[in-house]
Amino acid sequence: MTPPASDDSLFTPGSVQGFFDSGWCMEELKDRARFGVKAARCLHEENSEYQKVAVYETEFFGRVLTLDNAFMLCERDEFVYHEMLTHVPTTLHPNPQRALIIGGGDCGCVRELLKHPFEKIVQCEIDEAVTRVCREFYPWVGEVERDRRVELLFEDGFEFIQTHRRERPDEPFDLVIIDSTDPVGAAASLFTVSFYEQILGVLSADGIVVSQTESPHWHLDTVVSIQQRFSQVFDRSALYLGWIPTYPSGMWSWTIAGRTLNPEGPLYLDRTPRLESSCRYWNPDVQRASFQLPNFIRQAISVS
Amino acid sequence: MTPPASDDSLFTPGSVQGFFDSGWCMEELKDRARFGVKAARCLHEENSEYQKVAVYETEFFGRVLTLDNAFMLCERDEFVYHEMLTHVPTTLHPNPQRALIIGGGDCGCVRELLKHPFEKIVQCEIDEAVTRVCREFYPWVGEVERDRRVELLFEDGFEFIQTHRRERPDEPFDLVIIDSTDPVGAAASLFTVSFYEQILGVLSADGIVVSQTESPHWHLDTVVSIQQRFSQVFDRSALYLGWIPTYPSGMWSWTIAGRTLNPEGPLYLDRTPRLESSCRYWNPDVQRASFQLPNFIRQAISVS
Repeated sequence: MTPPASDDSLFTPGSVQGFFDSGWCMEELKDRARFGVKAARCLHEENSEYQKVAVYETEFFGRVLTLDNAFMLCERDEFVYHEMLTHVPTTLHPNPQRALIIGGGDCGCVRELLKHPFEKIVQCEIDEAVTRVCREFYPWVGEVERDRRVELLFEDGFEFIQTHRRERPDEPFDLVIIDSTDPVGAAASLFTVSFYEQILGVLSADGIVVSQTESPHWHLDTVVSIQQRFSQVFDRSALYLGWIPTYPSGMWSWTIAGRTLNPEGPLYLDRTPRLESSCRYWNPDVQRASFQLPNFIRQAISVS
Repeated sequence: MTPPASDDSLFTPGSVQGFFDSGWCMEELKDRARFGVKAARCLHEENSEYQKVAVYETEFFGRVLTLDNAFMLCERDEFVYHEMLTHVPTTLHPNPQRALIIGGGDCGCVRELLKHPFEKIVQCEIDEAVTRVCREFYPWVGEVERDRRVELLFEDGFEFIQTHRRERPDEPFDLVIIDSTDPVGAAASLFTVSFYEQILGVLSADGIVVSQTESPHWHLDTVVSIQQRFSQVFDRSALYLGWIPTYPSGMWSWTIAGRTLNPEGPLYLDRTPRLESSCRYWNPDVQRASFQLPNFIRQAISVS
């Protein structure tokens, strides 16, 4: 087992007494910074087998999903995260037919993938409570569940991939998306070299894997560590960036990798002529731009 | 006088009791969101003629300057703001010799402009207290003050430009930088059509003007309104973006304009061969990428 990708305490909820207090939901980042949203009321709160799952009503940010007191999804800006996590890899693949999502219980990724002509989209979320709660508060969950191309599983993603690799070697995935929480707790195993090796084993020859990989502004060591792990397993990997105001620092990163990936190669847009007009953030120019890294990130990755 | 560019209340400090309280500096954005940094102590606080000027010591963000309880400059991330506000316009001009900064009392812009072979850099900051306080806490202020190319004035920027236009029509500026606070109070006049018209009158034929123009994620109406004003006065204008974690939403915008500006034109890098290695954020690829706008911004600007 490789050591954790990160200083665990960095992602452990801080000392704020009462995440939802006096009309504010307030997330704390390890004694460094706090970010809060004005919230009218708590719509749901439960402790699942894995985490605290809660939804709050806010005026400006819409309905806000939190897991263990960390902001996961706000109606106001979730489009950035989900569009960038899905359309970047999908448009870089010449003909993706089968996709696997690890995590992603809020079903935002599935919603975006369904804009493409996939034959099959399998999602493996460890915590059934996340999808059950999201089904109640976000309209797209019911819609994607009714789509026959979609299969939602509730089990451990690491184990699913091991089993799939062993039992169905003739059914590789063209796209694997790791839509996880921070690299601690239940999600820590999703940031290890051994997990990436398992993914390589279920990926088609020109398959692409992509993972959310935290904030370079505030978690640069973690971002670099994850990059190193990807490059131990995949011939090609690259980091790209997007603006998500309700995630720490507002700068978020994703890492994309594959055997034959060329992130600067052609985009395959013919299959989905209406993709750009369906998006609020993504477009081909933004995709190209998202791979251009500021010097402090370039340098940290190049010396690692 | 044109009406204000923005809903003033959006930029008026909120109801947080005590900006610095219990070891945290907490900025509130009009009942929508709060952002705070862990602060060890207040190093300085005074009420100048124009605003409350304060500096706080923090472990993660370095020394933090606030004006009227809004974060202006953190040692940890100020490089993004100052590099993008200066090197983008400067590298788009074939041979800039004379620069004017309106505002900018912390002298971060002057510091960056001095990496280029300007003959003269004039800064016109309305509030002498900002520069005096920053001189005590930020080492670059004393350095730029000793440079013979730099002239620091403490007067009203609007009036300075009117006077300069009338009395020195043979001394136009190749670059005008508006490094202001939010578009309320003393800074409101710096976001008006009449101010942009005055700037046009002191700009050389191929001169460039650039202004900080708030957050498209959270202040989209304001961003669009400022864009419209620029395009009423200048033939060419464009918006570009950068990540600043301690500014609202983390997504910040600048608007660049001129009579002959082509933001996609060649970059003039020969004069400053060491520029890229001196920067922590800016590089030519990041500059190109910064003009690629997400759909929600593109659409808001195009329908305006």
